[in-house]
Amino acid sequence: MKSIVLFGAGNVATHLFRAISNTRNFRVVQVYNRTPANLVPFQTLVDTTSKMEEVKPADIYLIAVKDDAILPLVKELIFRQALVVHTAGAVSIDALENLDRKGIFYPLQTFSKTKKVDFKNIPICLEATNPQDLELLEELAGSISEKIFRINSEQRRSLHVAAVFVSNFVNYLYSEGEAICKENNIPFEILHPLILETAVKATGMSPLAAQTGPAKRNDTQVIQSHLELLTGDQQTIYSLITQSIQNLHGKEL
Amino acid sequence: MKSIVLFGAGNVATHLFRAISNTRNFRVVQVYNRTPANLVPFQTLVDTTSKMEEVKPADIYLIAVKDDAILPLVKELIFRQALVVHTAGAVSIDALENLDRKGIFYPLQTFSKTKKVDFKNIPICLEATNPQDLELLEELAGSISEKIFRINSEQRRSLHVAAVFVSNFVNYLYSEGEAICKENNIPFEILHPLILETAVKATGMSPLAAQTGPAKRNDTQVIQSHLELLTGDQQTIYSLITQSIQNLHGKEL
Repeated sequence: MKSIVLFGAGNVATHLFRAISNTRNFRVVQVYNRTPANLVPFQTLVDTTSKMEEVKPADIYLIAVKDDAILPLVKELIFRQALVVHTAGAVSIDALENLDRKGIFYPLQTFSKTKKVDFKNIPICLEATNPQDLELLEELAGSISEKIFRINSEQRRSLHVAAVFVSNFVNYLYSEGEAICKENNIPFEILHPLILETAVKATGMSPLAAQTGPAKRNDTQVIQSHLELLTGDQQTIYSLITQSIQNLHGKEL
Repeated sequence: MKSIVLFGAGNVATHLFRAISNTRNFRVVQVYNRTPANLVPFQTLVDTTSKMEEVKPADIYLIAVKDDAILPLVKELIFRQALVVHTAGAVSIDALENLDRKGIFYPLQTFSKTKKVDFKNIPICLEATNPQDLELLEELAGSISEKIFRINSEQRRSLHVAAVFVSNFVNYLYSEGEAICKENNIPFEILHPLILETAVKATGMSPLAAQTGPAKRNDTQVIQSHLELLTGDQQTIYSLITQSIQNLHGKEL
């Protein structure tokens, strides 16, 4: 049985806590968080602390705090023999400084506290400075998910950019679609099936091959008619993405 | 039993043909297409023709051809007593010219020929110049889908723009995400669960409220690090959407 101290009490930490609780070979022995109030949901389930000097020795220190809180936290760690692992997509392994044993355990999914997630299908990207630690992380990851990938810090930085494109930026386009509907008294739910089908399609074939629409068809009349309806950022985004689609597919306006 | 002549043999026409075949009260009596070769898949199922003078009288003429082929086709129609309906999101009802009985039957979904679709969940946007015809279209739409909406031509124009944002433009962002992965030897499938979850989330809550990511958090360090990795259109798009997210959420870079 390997012991884990979990640092953090936010969405990622909460979901990891639940997932690890269901494993045979790993156990969270303590949850640390700087703000005591955030530990309340964990108190009946596990030992908790807000004091770094009370942090227990363990096999793995799993850090699931905000990106810019990782480095200050690592500097304060007293028991430095554990494998120290963070869960951030955008932070290099170098942020774990001069620790002997360090690694990354990056679950690539969007988490909200209330919504249950099935960790089995969440890809986990792993990295470690020494081979035995990588094996230990693979054992931990493999006990909660079926999708394990070895991804180094340089790849992870690019992967994080790609994730911003396909998730944060995509959600921005959804919200502009919602805004256009609202302005015209159209229920946004009309677009729900299209949103879902577009996502499903992109996971079944290359999205490059799946591209359709006025930009791809170079339908200048429709493009012009759409631009006339738009103003501000919506118009700028429409122009630029239309142009980029045509660049990508080798056409010209 | 109401009779329908279907004009067109592409994706939308094919899916409509299948869906209408399963209704009790409507029957496609003929499929018209300018190019005889495209009629081959229909020939064993229904009467087909490529000659306008052979088009049968019917209760409804349902036009599912390319946007810019609608007007020329309508001009050629000989039997002008039918209710003439087109299926295009981007074409106004005025394109049906001086016909007495005209309407719109716009199924809002992305269709591919090979993939089966369940029409029950596809929203159908209806419009007609006279109330009886609107009722007839509601009967037809209601017999193949559970999601019927009355949407006038002005609303439909905006709806079509919104659909371009949440589908064509979203797919463009997927393809940039795919390109970034390829360049860095990362399997794009790592992003599949994130793509699906982001879409599902946006249909369960307002995407405006669901927005996350470096732009929303105003995490300038991560944004800067991402911009350094990107060039060309990817960099331009990253900057502009980041700025737009911050405008939308009332923050400044």
